[in-house]
Amino acid sequence: MSSSEAMTTDWQSVIEEIAEEIKPLLDEGKVADYIPELGNVDKANFGMSISLIDGREFYCGQALKSFSIQSISKVFSLTKAFSFLKDDLWKRVGKEPSGNPFNSLIQLEHENGKPRNPFINAGAIVVADCVVSHTQDSLNEIIGYIRGLADNKNIQIDHAMFRSEKAFGHRNAALAHFMKSYGNIESDVDEVLDFYFGHCSLSMSCQDISRAFLFLANHGVHPRTNKRYLTASQAKRLNALLLTCGTYDAAGDFAFRVGMPGKSGVGGGIAAIIPGLLSVCVWSPGLDKHGNSLAGVKALELLTTKTGISIF
Amino acid sequence: MSSSEAMTTDWQSVIEEIAEEIKPLLDEGKVADYIPELGNVDKANFGMSISLIDGREFYCGQALKSFSIQSISKVFSLTKAFSFLKDDLWKRVGKEPSGNPFNSLIQLEHENGKPRNPFINAGAIVVADCVVSHTQDSLNEIIGYIRGLADNKNIQIDHAMFRSEKAFGHRNAALAHFMKSYGNIESDVDEVLDFYFGHCSLSMSCQDISRAFLFLANHGVHPRTNKRYLTASQAKRLNALLLTCGTYDAAGDFAFRVGMPGKSGVGGGIAAIIPGLLSVCVWSPGLDKHGNSLAGVKALELLTTKTGISIF
Amino acid sequence: MSSSEAMTTDWQSVIEEIAEEIKPLLDEGKVADYIPELGNVDKANFGMSISLIDGREFYCGQALKSFSIQSISKVFSLTKAFSFLKDDLWKRVGKEPSGNPFNSLIQLEHENGKPRNPFINAGAIVVADCVVSHTQDSLNEIIGYIRGLADNKNIQIDHAMFRSEKAFGHRNAALAHFMKSYGNIESDVDEVLDFYFGHCSLSMSCQDISRAFLFLANHGVHPRTNKRYLTASQAKRLNALLLTCGTYDAAGDFAFRVGMPGKSGVGGGIAAIIPGLLSVCVWSPGLDKHGNSLAGVKALELLTTKTGISIF
Amino acid sequence: MSSSEAMTTDWQSVIEEIAEEIKPLLDEGKVADYIPELGNVDKANFGMSISLIDGREFYCGQALKSFSIQSISKVFSLTKAFSFLKDDLWKRVGKEPSGNPFNSLIQLEHENGKPRNPFINAGAIVVADCVVSHTQDSLNEIIGYIRGLADNKNIQIDHAMFRSEKAFGHRNAALAHFMKSYGNIESDVDEVLDFYFGHCSLSMSCQDISRAFLFLANHGVHPRTNKRYLTASQAKRLNALLLTCGTYDAAGDFAFRVGMPGKSGVGGGIAAIIPGLLSVCVWSPGLDKHGNSLAGVKALELLTTKTGISIF
Repeated sequence: MSSSEAMTTDWQSVIEEIAEEIKPLLDEGKVADYIPELGNVDKANFGMSISLIDGREFYCGQALKSFSIQSISKVFSLTKAFSFLKDDLWKRVGKEPSGNPFNSLIQLEHENGKPRNPFINAGAIVVADCVVSHTQDSLNEIIGYIRGLADNKNIQIDHAMFRSEKAFGHRNAALAHFMKSYGNIESDVDEVLDFYFGHCSLSMSCQDISRAFLFLANHGVHPRTNKRYLTASQAKRLNALLLTCGTYDAAGDFAFRVGMPGKSGVGGGIAAIIPGLLSVCVWSPGLDKHGNSLAGVKALELLTTKTGISIF
Repeated sequence: MSSSEAMTTDWQSVIEEIAEEIKPLLDEGKVADYIPELGNVDKANFGMSISLIDGREFYCGQALKSFSIQSISKVFSLTKAFSFLKDDLWKRVGKEPSGNPFNSLIQLEHENGKPRNPFINAGAIVVADCVVSHTQDSLNEIIGYIRGLADNKNIQIDHAMFRSEKAFGHRNAALAHFMKSYGNIESDVDEVLDFYFGHCSLSMSCQDISRAFLFLANHGVHPRTNKRYLTASQAKRLNALLLTCGTYDAAGDFAFRVGMPGKSGVGGGIAAIIPGLLSVCVWSPGLDKHGNSLAGVKALELLTTKTGISIF
Repeated sequence: MSSSEAMTTDWQSVIEEIAEEIKPLLDEGKVADYIPELGNVDKANFGMSISLIDGREFYCGQALKSFSIQSISKVFSLTKAFSFLKDDLWKRVGKEPSGNPFNSLIQLEHENGKPRNPFINAGAIVVADCVVSHTQDSLNEIIGYIRGLADNKNIQIDHAMFRSEKAFGHRNAALAHFMKSYGNIESDVDEVLDFYFGHCSLSMSCQDISRAFLFLANHGVHPRTNKRYLTASQAKRLNALLLTCGTYDAAGDFAFRVGMPGKSGVGGGIAAIIPGLLSVCVWSPGLDKHGNSLAGVKALELLTTKTGISIF
Repeated sequence: MSSSEAMTTDWQSVIEEIAEEIKPLLDEGKVADYIPELGNVDKANFGMSISLIDGREFYCGQALKSFSIQSISKVFSLTKAFSFLKDDLWKRVGKEPSGNPFNSLIQLEHENGKPRNPFINAGAIVVADCVVSHTQDSLNEIIGYIRGLADNKNIQIDHAMFRSEKAFGHRNAALAHFMKSYGNIESDVDEVLDFYFGHCSLSMSCQDISRAFLFLANHGVHPRTNKRYLTASQAKRLNALLLTCGTYDAAGDFAFRVGMPGKSGVGGGIAAIIPGLLSVCVWSPGLDKHGNSLAGVKALELLTTKTGISIF
């Protein structure tokens, strides 16, 4: 899609068509239920928000309603850690697709406590440790950072979610202790997990998230604030990571069907970008077997089909 | 990079600069030596060829010298199989990065004989079986097909290479028998392996290969011949597969550093494309620990850095 | 059990009681059906034969009816290979329980082509290669060897079984090619597989097998013929291997419940021994989920419970 | 070995010969050093103690010196848990050799949080949870239990060891949290780990340990006190488990070379038994690559060679 085509696309009509077409799918997915706070969300929800780097915005459905961002938070903490550790970060976490479910300890054991990539849980816990070890009051600071990215001071932690994540987080605790045994966690395990579960428990809307991802579509500079978050090269590289690793062990299929760098969360949100053009966030709580929003993936596939946008 | 920038880039100077800059790396890699025919190639070789979809071509170094294409052949047989089986192909082979070395049987066992993707050896053997089971005289036919793609009637099999591949191909024979035990090989194992080793043993130059990949940069239609090889949607999807799975278990790092869909071979060649713009092939026989050309990856990284081209 | 107790046990009554008690189990197992020749056997069959080293013999049921010995053959080829290679054998095959199903390639890949033990298929194929590489006309020779052990010249290969094993043996072919790629198969793969499938396809009765195992209960010397097959130390060690590895990935449970060194086959036979006392063979074609005869394991458990014999 | 032979064996001479013969090996092993308290022990130590069920005892070297029992403790907690949970225990922990290093999470993940056997760390942590969940003041109670078995009221925890185990126990914490995530840990993780590390940190001498294991050689009844700890059937079965799983991933080799059910600890102790005859404990801190006492394994192998005792 050329820039001139992007100017003339009727984005509002496109997303409304999509919202109509995915309706039959809303009932098919399965809402995450490993903690009650996630399980209580209504599967009928669907929202979609597009932010163009030229400043225009389009949304439909429940795009202004907050939901649990879950793993989408990993992009924010990674951006922060990448911006201050630069390429030293990759000494502690890899850049390869995992080929295994997102919370697997197997690969971690084969590779001596260095997680495959920053988007599997183990990798995100290492990134969390990087942030915790380099900042004071790290949880409040990341919340401020995310509010800045989304240009919304009202973004809050869902504290019931936070408590449940901690109470049921034995597998993530196992990952953290396991990496600690290899020396790949510097701070105290409980402190790292608090940060990790904390920023996973933020509630944001589709609009918040599409706005917050816009810097990745604009070479690292947020067009709403002109603030630089990453260098152009770093932004390009983070996009590459999102494409190869951002959607759990379905990243290949997501690239095949959708063709956009993106990140999903078990709360049902998916954020994605087209470099040089736009960021988008879609939300629908019913998940497919890989843990990605079932209607959300379809909505993004329709977006690329209808408009011809794709990185490939 | 916009189209107008592509017009004004001095491609010849860029690739000559690159050829100069990678010189110190030529000695660092390790030439594949599992068969003598590969081990005898001089590490000092370096060639690079760029084919733009507007018809212009640029090359430097040993870009016209033939070398063993090895796994680059997998893209040609996959294109053929995808064009006639369409999405039925994915019932027999997956679309996900493997997370394991390219000839691993482990993942295959965990997933009941369905290979992760068409670029690991097991997947390419399934693709070979698809071609063998659907064509007469399949090896000669694929040679004709590749000659057509490269627009060069002189492309030949290196028969000494072919014999060696078969004589030392116990691991690929193991993969084929193993998948046969799961019912995922239809034709006779020896016939499939003959096709597989045969088209891996083709000799082509950088120029042949960059020309042959140009249809992937042009929505499935070869701009030199106007022949359609894949639909636009299929071409886009094959590019996505190349990005996530094309460079063995270093696909994440390749996307991170280079940011182009590409396919490497242990003969030292790497082909890559920028959709809508160009295809490129680089050759240097010294390999890194993942089996990709060490200087070749660097040359492609420099190409993207110097010109700003990237899909991200 | 002391020697004097063994003298006074009424073995005939014991095995007849057992034959009665296991009747309800005969219908529960599942006959192996990966080849038609195995699938056609009637589940109602049950036989049991005990050979004491003092020369007495007891049997009941179908103990004189021939069945396919399958993996029980691995003990015979191992005995032969161990007797001439001595401890050099363990350079090529390990002595540890596998912890994985008997035909797994996974462990083999992790351990560079050296099988865990001689009773998983990969290990038995290496043992077969040892025999093939050290004998002329190896299949006929091993048949003669087994006839000698069982003191029965009429033991024959079931040729329909043999042909089926070869026709459906893709997984074993995969194992052999895979180990060949690591250099752990010396002879031609097809020749090794012919030997392997050949001696697996022998038909023997419970009585043949209990007689053939008697040397393991008697420090390596067959009490019927006074022929030494192994040294006392080797016999002791082969018994240890049978205990830890002889019943696929159920060896722990078999030791726990039965407490005898033993070897099972998917034809439904199980041979076991009590050092210094006896060998026993039980046959019932219905298998449990581990591939061991369901009623057979129970019969041996009852034998130890009723008589108090156990190595523990 | 018959009972009459056991009566006439000059056990004292045998163990003194062994102590002499293993001297050259004392320097070859590697003392465990993951915590300082273990690393500080002198490799020159060697002790051996034999307890016969007829009441006689023999010892040599440092057999009365206390050392850290480490994993040998797992036999005591397992005996306790087995005695009150009976076969319900096996719903939570398996009975098969692991085929993997003793602290692996891989197998645990493949088998949904149910450890392979009670002697790998994960299995022992489940057993610890069983004890903790069924007793008050569980650590003091198990200490009393072990004092009773060894008939020695002075057995104590080494508190510096205990603190170090907890401080460096991240991998065991990972195992416990991981199994908790599968619902296979009932009590609080920290409480279970306290018990686990606590009884691992007991100091005992060879004599203490050989006495404490005597009930396993005597059908579950301790001959010194006539107290029954397990039924005859349970004792037999625990011996089978020791044989197939008691010496980490070298159980096959230990059975092959030594032929006795036994349990080793990284403190350098190994306890073993011959049913109906004796228990033995050997201690030497230098370990082989599997974590078993290098000179200790050799000493037990010599014991069986010199006296002819073996279960096979």
